Amino acid sequence: MSLLENLNWRHSVKAFNPEKKVSQENIEKIIEAARLAPTSSGLQQFRVINVSNQETKEKLVAGALNPDSMKECSNVLVFAAWDNYTAERIDKVYDYTTEERDLPKGRFDSYTDQLKALYLNQPAEENFAHTSRQSYIGLGLSLAEAAELKIDSCPAEGFNNKLVDEILELEKHGLKSVSLMYVGYADDTRDWIKPMKKVRIPRNEFVIDVK
Amino acid sequence: MSLLENLNWRHSVKAFNPEKKVSQENIEKIIEAARLAPTSSGLQQFRVINVSNQETKEKLVAGALNPDSMKECSNVLVFAAWDNYTAERIDKVYDYTTEERDLPKGRFDSYTDQLKALYLNQPAEENFAHTSRQSYIGLGLSLAEAAELKIDSCPAEGFNNKLVDEILELEKHGLKSVSLMYVGYADDTRDWIKPMKKVRIPRNEFVIDVK
Repeated sequence: MSLLENLNWRHSVKAFNPEKKVSQENIEKIIEAARLAPTSSGLQQFRVINVSNQETKEKLVAGALNPDSMKECSNVLVFAAWDNYTAERIDKVYDYTTEERDLPKGRFDSYTDQLKALYLNQPAEENFAHTSRQSYIGLGLSLAEAAELKIDSCPAEGFNNKLVDEILELEKHGLKSVSLMYVGYADDTRDWIKPMKKVRIPRNEFVIDVK
Repeated sequence: MSLLENLNWRHSVKAFNPEKKVSQENIEKIIEAARLAPTSSGLQQFRVINVSNQETKEKLVAGALNPDSMKECSNVLVFAAWDNYTAERIDKVYDYTTEERDLPKGRFDSYTDQLKALYLNQPAEENFAHTSRQSYIGLGLSLAEAAELKIDSCPAEGFNNKLVDEILELEKHGLKSVSLMYVGYADDTRDWIKPMKKVRIPRNEFVIDVK
């Protein structure tokens, strides 16, 4: 099936079957789509926390808009972004890229200097707004990959970010949670949205053509 | 090719061949991927402006980090998000959904009341930060669709948003520009990044496993 067919196939599942787990192989593919996501300046400013432990999932529930999905899905993928830009984080990415590409050390120095001049002069809040936007590219690609594998999912923003950050100890990784992706297999009897038509605004309202 | 193969195939092209245009059929498919993107509460808070007119592209160039790409690519897709939430915008989406699903009028009233209570009490700036994040889901899916079609692309944030908003008259549509996607065919002789290895941080640094 093509990407467009897969996107038409998927929907945001409202109830998961707690008995059906997603294989590790497929979870890896879903995460791999996010890892391959393009990001601003190639900095990969976000990470994925893969929560399969039932006890941990239940600790994350408080304040979630879909508490049952959190508990009943197979894996909760937490998309978390850098809490700020630092010179160290920027250098680490470009040092690694330089090494992997077998380029002379310092090849990207003038570029990373530009990035530092921009980001290190902005407040952490503004930088986090920027890093968290990048994570949505990864979220979209992971949702598409799940659809290709015919695995159900639901993206979610409605949760207690502070609680999730604390329980997953994200601060020590320099991360803050942004969004969740519930992954699993739908419980068709309780997934009330499944029989409903997928609705999107018409093409002509979605696009403005400048010819 | 699978989505993961397509994501490995693509890269952010640094130089386009100005002679090679993307067919309208393929542009429609690339935009369709964004139209099918899931968004927070299903509100589809963003639009795509499809700029193929050369004169308009050249007007958008000032302040762009990749001015040549802007001029030489086939189409510039501008991802633009709602400048704010309004009761009218929220109702329009849900009225349409209700109609398309043949549900009783007002079926989603309690849900839209919740959305309004949340968003209409937040400053426009905070709401725009939220709507613009959603547009990155669409951007990611459009990049993936282009890769599936073996069409080259480059996402871009570095441009003069205010100028783009003015030239495309986005204010009258209640939109503000967020990101660009240059679409076309690479000029392999000038696309310096093409021969380089695609680099992403290793899986074990990208993922935190909570088992």
